Order: sequence, then C-alpha cells, then structure tokens
Amino acid sequence: MRLATLDNGTKDGQLIIVSAGGTHYAPAPVANLQAALEDWDALAPQMAATDAFPHELDSARLLAPLPRAWQWLDGSVFPSHGALMDKVLGVAPEKPPFPQMYQGVSDTFYAPVCDVPMADEALGIDFEGEFGIITKPVPMGTPASQAHKYIALIVQINDWSLRKLAGPEMKTGFGWIQAKPPCGMAQFAVTPDELGAYWRNCRPAMHLRVIWNGTQFGNAFGEPMAYGFHELVAHAARTRHLVAGTVIGSGTVSNETYREVGSSCIAERRGIEIVDHGAPSTEFMAYGDTVRMEAHLPDGRLPFGIIEQRVVPA
Amino acid sequence: MRLATLDNGTKDGQLIIVSAGGTHYAPAPVANLQAALEDWDALAPQMAATDAFPHELDSARLLAPLPRAWQWLDGSVFPSHGALMDKVLGVAPEKPPFPQMYQGVSDTFYAPVCDVPMADEALGIDFEGEFGIITKPVPMGTPASQAHKYIALIVQINDWSLRKLAGPEMKTGFGWIQAKPPCGMAQFAVTPDELGAYWRNCRPAMHLRVIWNGTQFGNAFGEPMAYGFHELVAHAARTRHLVAGTVIGSGTVSNETYREVGSSCIAERRGIEIVDHGAPSTEFMAYGDTVRMEAHLPDGRLPFGIIEQRVVPA
Repeated sequence: MRLATLDNGTKDGQLIIVSAGGTHYAPAPVANLQAALEDWDALAPQMAATDAFPHELDSARLLAPLPRAWQWLDGSVFPSHGALMDKVLGVAPEKPPFPQMYQGVSDTFYAPVCDVPMADEALGIDFEGEFGIITKPVPMGTPASQAHKYIALIVQINDWSLRKLAGPEMKTGFGWIQAKPPCGMAQFAVTPDELGAYWRNCRPAMHLRVIWNGTQFGNAFGEPMAYGFHELVAHAARTRHLVAGTVIGSGTVSNETYREVGSSCIAERRGIEIVDHGAPSTEFMAYGDTVRMEAHLPDGRLPFGIIEQRVVPA
Repeated sequence: MRLATLDNGTKDGQLIIVSAGGTHYAPAPVANLQAALEDWDALAPQMAATDAFPHELDSARLLAPLPRAWQWLDGSVFPSHGALMDKVLGVAPEKPPFPQMYQGVSDTFYAPVCDVPMADEALGIDFEGEFGIITKPVPMGTPASQAHKYIALIVQINDWSLRKLAGPEMKTGFGWIQAKPPCGMAQFAVTPDELGAYWRNCRPAMHLRVIWNGTQFGNAFGEPMAYGFHELVAHAARTRHLVAGTVIGSGTVSNETYREVGSSCIAERRGIEIVDHGAPSTEFMAYGDTVRMEAHLPDGRLPFGIIEQRVVPA
C-alpha cells in the first residue's frame, strides 16, 4: 500500500491511498495520516483492501505524507558516512557501541516538491538523502527482536543541513539545533510488504539516486546500514515510549564504494576531497539550486515517488 | 493570567483559566492550550478579562498545562551548573559563544502530580528543576531584541534525566536520546504580566524550592541566567520558524552560591562532592522516591503551583 497526503488547507492534510501506477487515488477512511497511525491495526487492512481509485492524482497538491510529527529521530548508521563527516566538520566524536541518533525538528516536514527557505546562503547549505520509517505506538523497552512489528510505513527523506553550524554544535555535546532546519519527505509512504524483497532485515535494499542541479551526484545502496530500522526503533524506545507517528531516519545513505557510487550529501564529497587532495573543492548549495532524490528499483520504479526541492532565501 | 489543563480524556485536555487564589476556574473559550497559542493575540486578552470563576478546581485532575508540544528545546544557561555537570558526566565539551541547547522529547509532558515510569533504576535517575517558556509562532530569523514579544507563557519544568546514559551520548556529539525521558510540568502556565517585577529581562527572579523525599534539597534563584529567554528564543529561531506551542527551557536552575542554596538536581550535588571530597556520595533516585518543586515568591505564593512526582518501574 502506498499512502500520500493532499493539501486541503489543514496542517495535517488529507490522507489518500494511491494506485499501483501512482496516477490515481482513493480518499482514506480517516482524516489524516497521524489519525491513521493512532489506529493503525484496524485501519491499515481496511485501506490496503482498496481496489477502486476514482480520482486523478495531481502531484502538485502533495504534501509530505506526514506533514508534521510529534517526534523525529535521525540515526547515522552508514559507517562510511560518519568517518568522512568528521573530516569535514573538524570533530572527533567517539563512535559508540550503539546507534548514533539525534532528535530534530518535527513540527514541519516540507512537501516533496517545493521551495525551501534558508536563513543564510553562507551557512553551508546541504542536502542529505535518507530512508526513514514511521511507527505505530511503541512501548518503552521494546526489544529489537520485536521492534519490526511497530514499523508501519517506510519513507524517503531529505534532511536539510547547515554545515557551518554543525561542528560548533557537535562540540557542545548537546547535538544540533541551528544546523538542522526541517526535513523534506518524498511523495509516498509505503508499507513494508509494498517493497517485497527490497525490504530486507528492516533495511531498504535499493539505490537512492541524488541529482543536484540536473546532474547525478550519488546513487548509493540503502542496505548496508550498520543497524536495521528495528534496532533504531528499539534504541529510541529504551527509555521512552514512542507515540504513533514517530519518524526515525537512517542518516545519509553512504557506501564504502563512494568513489564509484557517489554521495548523498555534499559534505561527504568534501570529506572525500579532503582525503584525496587535502582540501575540499565542491562548494555547498547556492540560492536557486535544486536537489532531486529518487529511490529506485531495478525495473525503474520509484516506490516513494520523488523529492525535488529548491533552496530560496527565507 | 494563570492557565491550566484539565484531564477530559483527550490527549490535549481542556484549557481553563484559574482564579487568583488558585481554587476556582472558568472554562477557556477554546478547546486546549495548543489551539489557544495558535490564535494567541485574539484569545489571550479575552481570557485575561475573565472575572467569574464558577467552578471549584480539583487539582488531582490537572494535566501539564501543555500535555504535548510540537517542540521542546532545552537550554543550559546557568554557568555554575555546566561546570559541575562535566565533572559528573566525565565529559569536557566546549563551552560555546552561544547558548547550549538540545531538542528533547515533546510528545509527552507528565502531569504535575503523577507517577513517572522509568526503564531501569540503575540508570542514574535524576530530576532537574527548571523554568521554561511557551511561544507564539516565531518567524525564522527573529532577533533577540524582538523575541520577548513571542513569549506567551512561563512554566516550571522537571526535566527527568538518566545520568548513566548522558556522558556516552554527549560524546557522540549527537546529544541525548536515551538520557532524556519526557519532562513534567507544574500546574499553572502564567503570562509574563502575572509575575510582575519577578519577571526581569526575560528571567524569573524567584527561587525554586526542590524537595527530595520530604527534605529540602535546593532553593536556587532563577535570575542568573547567562542568556534570557528572549535570547534562547532567538537562538532557536535562527534557522527555523518556531510553531505555536514551542517550549524552551532554562536548564537546571543553579547559583554560584551552591553550597548555601543547594542544587536543583542530584548530579550537580555529586559534582560538588567530587570537587570537595574527590568522589560523589549522594546516590541517584530509587523507585518510590518523590521530588517536589515549587517556585515561590517572597510572600510565599507559588505562581506555577507545584510539581510532585514519584519514580516507579515502567
């Protein structure tokens, strides 16, 4: 099942069920995705049984599937990413024996196709291509062995970042506030069964194509996560319950073969340039720049649709 | 004006306006505090004009004034606190030229008087007595000189912490997830004018009494914040807009005269013990322990009412 959210003038939008071809939809029997997640076990089977999609989908009306969430927790579980980032940010944090994870702003997830306002072009504007999941309510203390049961939906995320602010904030030990404006989300949220064999051990076994100003910048594979999403859910829920609609991210998709596959953010490429040449040469984004992200299957299908966002002055 | 929220079976509760004596209330002309904050400039004057409080207040029915929020950002702006905490947590983070701030779980603020479930007694369970503010919508880039205009309400907060998890999470640079379960909030949220001369330069000029298992533990003064709440709002809003109902905390109230006034959390006292004796001697909380917190004015009034919470197994 693929779900999406139409802009109907409310903050949470209108939940819709999207046809296999992505061209038509049926209204969901519930107002919005947050409400659906709070009663997921009853509503999901009912929605999945939809077999008539009477309305044509106007993709320009799509918001993020979950336009705002009570909680956004972003991991960083692609090992090749972390090491390169430390070089760029000038930090040397400990690599702990647990998933790295920060809590970010969740009151806004930008629409898949939109202009994204940024405070200052000089702050090192960067995209980050990621995968994420959205949970049902998760009890405190849920072990990793049970945590997959609480994953309702899988999403594709652009975690906007301001790199000049990231290093100084990391050095405080308090994590990021200013370095992490709101994220964007791709058009469709999908159930695990929708991905079939491409959802393996709670990891997305598919490539994420990232296109910056029309040129392919990266095409990394999603599977080599050091921790699966079930383990990220369990980590997050160790000392708190997670409310329905908690969004958990993988961190920037990155592969050890980054010289072949490219990167899912600019900072990582700058890290590679530091390794190879002693200094970075790729600049961060400028106002007017666009980034497009599309996770794709071998047959060319885009399960999450696209993200295509343009940076503009606030 | 003092506002509170009654448990009516919904997640957001029912907003009420509380009489000067704190014994009676009038229902607010809006469903809940979140809705009020989204239309604050129209609703606040109307609510402040309430002169009849027909209902007797049953304080056992009070939830947190804002039982859940879209965003919780906690500062740490009492300088004497930070230095002692580094000794306890075994970290040496940089003290930056800006307010330290982390984003914490906001989908739950515990009721003022309740049992608080904790995952494990061995994790170093600790309270933190704080002040906080709740904002109207704040535009991105709002300067500190304008930020006081967006402070709708002042609150008193207990920021529950698990100290054994705090140091390892700080060392990642990503901030806290497991070390920071949900906070509690005192009974009443008050407008700045309600505090009169005790709200100075966006700082609460009053003492916060903290009582652990019936014995006074601390009575620190709220005013010596290195940054006022207007500066915390501006810091938070530099690269993001803040939605209505964003909660921003001061961090643990602490004074340089901590040997006389005591502390607002156990970890700080352990830091003092390390300074004085080379090792900590005060243990963290055990299941069944209670903590009571009450900010008080010279005439004995408690503007925010009380927090009185007991730690129990999850």
